[in-house]
Amino acid sequence: MRIAMVQDRIVPAGELDPVYLDRGVFFGDGVYEVLRSYDGKLFALEEHMERFARSLSEIELSGIDLGEIRSRVLRAFDAAGLANAMIYFHITRGSAPRNRVWDAGLKPNFFLTVSELHDKPEDKAEGIAVSTFPDWRWKRCDIKSLNLLPNVLACTAAARKGCAEAIFVNDAGLITEGAGSAFFAIRGRSLQTAPLTANILPSITRQFTIKAGRNIGLEIVEESLTPEQAIGSDELLVASTTKDIMGVVKFDDKPIGNGKPGKYTKLLAKEFRSFTV
Amino acid sequence: MRIAMVQDRIVPAGELDPVYLDRGVFFGDGVYEVLRSYDGKLFALEEHMERFARSLSEIELSGIDLGEIRSRVLRAFDAAGLANAMIYFHITRGSAPRNRVWDAGLKPNFFLTVSELHDKPEDKAEGIAVSTFPDWRWKRCDIKSLNLLPNVLACTAAARKGCAEAIFVNDAGLITEGAGSAFFAIRGRSLQTAPLTANILPSITRQFTIKAGRNIGLEIVEESLTPEQAIGSDELLVASTTKDIMGVVKFDDKPIGNGKPGKYTKLLAKEFRSFTV
Repeated sequence: MRIAMVQDRIVPAGELDPVYLDRGVFFGDGVYEVLRSYDGKLFALEEHMERFARSLSEIELSGIDLGEIRSRVLRAFDAAGLANAMIYFHITRGSAPRNRVWDAGLKPNFFLTVSELHDKPEDKAEGIAVSTFPDWRWKRCDIKSLNLLPNVLACTAAARKGCAEAIFVNDAGLITEGAGSAFFAIRGRSLQTAPLTANILPSITRQFTIKAGRNIGLEIVEESLTPEQAIGSDELLVASTTKDIMGVVKFDDKPIGNGKPGKYTKLLAKEFRSFTV
Repeated sequence: MRIAMVQDRIVPAGELDPVYLDRGVFFGDGVYEVLRSYDGKLFALEEHMERFARSLSEIELSGIDLGEIRSRVLRAFDAAGLANAMIYFHITRGSAPRNRVWDAGLKPNFFLTVSELHDKPEDKAEGIAVSTFPDWRWKRCDIKSLNLLPNVLACTAAARKGCAEAIFVNDAGLITEGAGSAFFAIRGRSLQTAPLTANILPSITRQFTIKAGRNIGLEIVEESLTPEQAIGSDELLVASTTKDIMGVVKFDDKPIGNGKPGKYTKLLAKEFRSFTV
């Protein structure tokens, strides 16, 4: 590389901060995790670390000391001093002049933020609206990668309609998952969600929601739903790390159930919270 | 956001360089272009600017002064003083604490590099080997976005097999395009390539290759090929901005034609070069 330009300023190659050559921005060549604490206690740290290890392995990003990453997470959480914290972190394959083929000698870049979570009890009480968006994502959504432009487009389109989440519908007309959450329906005494084979993220909150469902006596059905089936369900809910279980009371403008979070949704949320203490 | 961490260093939120909060790295929320010069003359600048405008529009990244971007490209090209230059540039939606839904008030980030191109006459003379990879990409490959992890994985897998390019094959068993190039076959007196409807990039080099094909009397066939049909073709070639037309002499280890770039490939390359002077 001879020269670079940052905004309208020419920078000789030798003076460029390597952060501008991060493969994260050139290619989204990295993976991430988000976890949270409840009242000063991190939830499901080991599960998140395990999934992170799997994501790294799937994109062949090797040489990461996961013990060191884990201790950075704990150190940052301590330093922030927040009871209800959201911790985001990613690792990219490193900084280098742009080339799709990576060089095995690159030094990965680690970045983390800790933010305060403001849980919204009114959303929990009233439920949220969601809207569907075509599932344009890549075929390896099992990897928690930085390639998230379809999620960005979906969430922004949903927000413009006053919706708190976008729900992806694939080419076969089936719901896969939310743009930042797992998606569930209550049908009779069944808790239904797409199977992990449906190109979805192995969501940790999904796993705990299924556990909560079993604990309260629901039958677990891992089968994809159509939007029509979703609208006809007794209750709908989304599950994510930052908001755990949230009732969905409107789906593409159609009211769900009686327009309030249903009884199983409330029982699931209560059971889920018992895991976090 | 309360604190951040860069590698193993804790940084208070107020002291963090906004470059670390680029939506480019969080989401790949940006679009890019690559163009080149031949002997001191930029090739197809207007075509690249038009495609860039379209990419921006498709991801609803608005408020960009394209005249200003064009003049930055020219200024950087001048400043680098390279006869055979590769110019890469991207715009991301800006820097902000991570949130999938974007804020309309964000200031986009522009970044550009100019590098010297070292054309490899031996590759042109001898041709290159390519290997196939599953097309895991998202469904909007018509947008030249920063979500390129599947391309990175494909190119690196190809490089390990000694191949200079990866060729994507979709779920229907059809070739879409190369990970960084358009893909063509010569069959009799036809020049065949996937139609633009096949979730491929509207490649500018593809467009000039088709023009070159017409000029030398080939029939243009926009129909997808299977790998078997590719292997059975008289000649294969890839076309990209940095390498224009390059003969493919090995496809998944199978020799193509007589194992050297074929006569139409050479005629196409010659015709293409006449556009660049």
